[in-house]
Amino acid sequence: MGNLAYPSRFSNHLPPPSIGGTKSAEPEHVHLSYGFPASDLLPIRELNEAANAALQVARVDLLHYSGAQGPVRVKSWVLNRVRKFGLLAEGGNFLPVFGAIQGIDLTARILINPGDEVWVEAPTFFNALQSFRAAGAQICSFPVDEEGLQVNRVEEALQKASAEGRKLPKFIYIMPTFQNPTGSTLPIGRRRQLAQLAKDYDVYILEDDAYAELSFNGTTLPAVYSFAPERVIYVSTFSKTLGPGLRLGWVIAPEEIIQYMATLSLGSQLNPFTQEIVGELLEHYDFDRQVERLSDRYRSRRDTMIRALHEELGSEIQVSVPDGGFFIWVTFGEHVDVNAVAPLAHRRGVSFVSGNAFFNDGKGARYLRLCFSHCSEEQIRKGLRSLAEAYYSIYSG
Amino acid sequence: MGNLAYPSRFSNHLPPPSIGGTKSAEPEHVHLSYGFPASDLLPIRELNEAANAALQVARVDLLHYSGAQGPVRVKSWVLNRVRKFGLLAEGGNFLPVFGAIQGIDLTARILINPGDEVWVEAPTFFNALQSFRAAGAQICSFPVDEEGLQVNRVEEALQKASAEGRKLPKFIYIMPTFQNPTGSTLPIGRRRQLAQLAKDYDVYILEDDAYAELSFNGTTLPAVYSFAPERVIYVSTFSKTLGPGLRLGWVIAPEEIIQYMATLSLGSQLNPFTQEIVGELLEHYDFDRQVERLSDRYRSRRDTMIRALHEELGSEIQVSVPDGGFFIWVTFGEHVDVNAVAPLAHRRGVSFVSGNAFFNDGKGARYLRLCFSHCSEEQIRKGLRSLAEAYYSIYSG
Repeated sequence: MGNLAYPSRFSNHLPPPSIGGTKSAEPEHVHLSYGFPASDLLPIRELNEAANAALQVARVDLLHYSGAQGPVRVKSWVLNRVRKFGLLAEGGNFLPVFGAIQGIDLTARILINPGDEVWVEAPTFFNALQSFRAAGAQICSFPVDEEGLQVNRVEEALQKASAEGRKLPKFIYIMPTFQNPTGSTLPIGRRRQLAQLAKDYDVYILEDDAYAELSFNGTTLPAVYSFAPERVIYVSTFSKTLGPGLRLGWVIAPEEIIQYMATLSLGSQLNPFTQEIVGELLEHYDFDRQVERLSDRYRSRRDTMIRALHEELGSEIQVSVPDGGFFIWVTFGEHVDVNAVAPLAHRRGVSFVSGNAFFNDGKGARYLRLCFSHCSEEQIRKGLRSLAEAYYSIYSG
Repeated sequence: MGNLAYPSRFSNHLPPPSIGGTKSAEPEHVHLSYGFPASDLLPIRELNEAANAALQVARVDLLHYSGAQGPVRVKSWVLNRVRKFGLLAEGGNFLPVFGAIQGIDLTARILINPGDEVWVEAPTFFNALQSFRAAGAQICSFPVDEEGLQVNRVEEALQKASAEGRKLPKFIYIMPTFQNPTGSTLPIGRRRQLAQLAKDYDVYILEDDAYAELSFNGTTLPAVYSFAPERVIYVSTFSKTLGPGLRLGWVIAPEEIIQYMATLSLGSQLNPFTQEIVGELLEHYDFDRQVERLSDRYRSRRDTMIRALHEELGSEIQVSVPDGGFFIWVTFGEHVDVNAVAPLAHRRGVSFVSGNAFFNDGKGARYLRLCFSHCSEEQIRKGLRSLAEAYYSIYSG
């Protein structure tokens, strides 16, 4: 009587378990793994005031499915804000989502049939990989250098696939600004080139711009979207500027895409409660000042981490020096396996994410990702001392 | 150069656009379509106080990914509360989600490969149908009577499929208590029988209990889960008791299921901001009193709607009389097409949901669903007068 007709009780495309956050609850533990903002810079007082005002003004509407003015306010604010990155979009191009990751996941779900190809950067954001696996995608990776995705390699592959009559990718997933995990930023030339490829080969670009606000040198590049709005699905979030716990992000995309995503959201996307509060906040909040405060802090922490890496691990490593965002990408010698270092480092009170998580093929054991946004400069120095001790206990320098 | 290798740019399983809410923004319009709670009974003041307290006590933690005590509080509260429905579950069986619909959607995504069967009630909740379509499921419908799903028919079909060596369903989706849309409630005998079938044939039951708290006669039945915890995925929500805008629901299921769902949530499920506030609220809130208040109000509105239906449409219709929940299901003669009535009714200032939306095969034009929870008794009477006028303008009684 058993359900034996099935190869498995579950979907064929369930991804493996995600990498977790750091499990240690020791108060002294240094979490260089978490991609978290600096706690003391999150606008608690302002959100408190906004919650008060929203709960009084919007009253019951924020507890209904569709909300009152909040969703409209958030939408207008975002559509105005993203002009900074060259996005000129209308209301019909906008969908609020539970963080950028939901925008990524909806993209995979509306575009992918099992076996379809998705092209990604290597390394890339692990939760995006998980989403593409769950959709049953064939994932092809393209290398990243100091200037981000090697777009020439993508062009060659598109030419080749096209010439051979093979399937083109359904979309290319890219984080062009302060990439997670390498911190690299795609220069404007490569952005234009990628946008042109999307048009020429009629493929979508999924552009994840979650870190774009956090520029350390004041410069801002136009998004890939700005060069091919009809071919780019742009996702971003308030997670890095107001707080990830809000779970409030957005998609800006061609109207047809937005409509399919809205259908797949099953009437459950708006989160009006949070949007009323954030909408109220944004009416009065000096967002530019907040971004400046965050960037100043993170720049300083980045510098401290870079210095500490050189002092502690010197010639053993190569490090990226990002112009923004949260992360530094560390490259060890080819003989190194950071997975052997991780448990020793953890016992010494510091954690990081091993490189493997960021590669679809599970390679990348000589890399690790460090997050400099969350910990104090003192913690960063202490954490890197512990990391170096763990490393040298295996690999004598 | 076009991407011509594809039959379509999109997934093969995109569902058709969802039915929308009522579009009319006329303040006098009577929305009998919306499945909304009564606005003035939502705990605005209490949530306001809870937001204040949470933002002060939990401070920055509620803005992080994982939150502080809120998620723990909500989890404990829910696990204790559901004992009322016979659920004895542990922390590992619990996952917070953005409303019951996300629990339904995650179930479809972790269990369904395209072509797998899902068995549903006819009629059933339209957003659940959308989710199963998006997963590529083959949907088979089983009729509902005054006592809910005809479980004997399900048993016969399982016997037949098993005897013929055909595929069994991956799961059976059911709303056993105050069903949306019929308002029917599965008696305890059918619940036991269904649970036994799930065990005997090794299939999952997806039990949607979103309306279970809203009993009008004070009686409570044990959930199907209580008879087969190893074979039931139970979903419910705060949407009907505290407010849908919170987007806070839960799944209670075997640990393996919860783990797969958590993986597929891509680190983005917890919504700590809302959970901190709701967790704080539940510490002090008289939830039983709230449920009593809601049930009293809805019972009275149900009675008014039943009376008005009899007065206005008399022998033209048959109506369900639900013992709880939000909805009345109206059956017209076989010659009636409510889709012809809908635009005329809308012009007269009242809206409802046509029966078709609740059937997978698109049939059901002689049925309509009315929601009695949201509108005042005066609006209900006025709305039904307009509905009857629209009906008689086509079908002279």
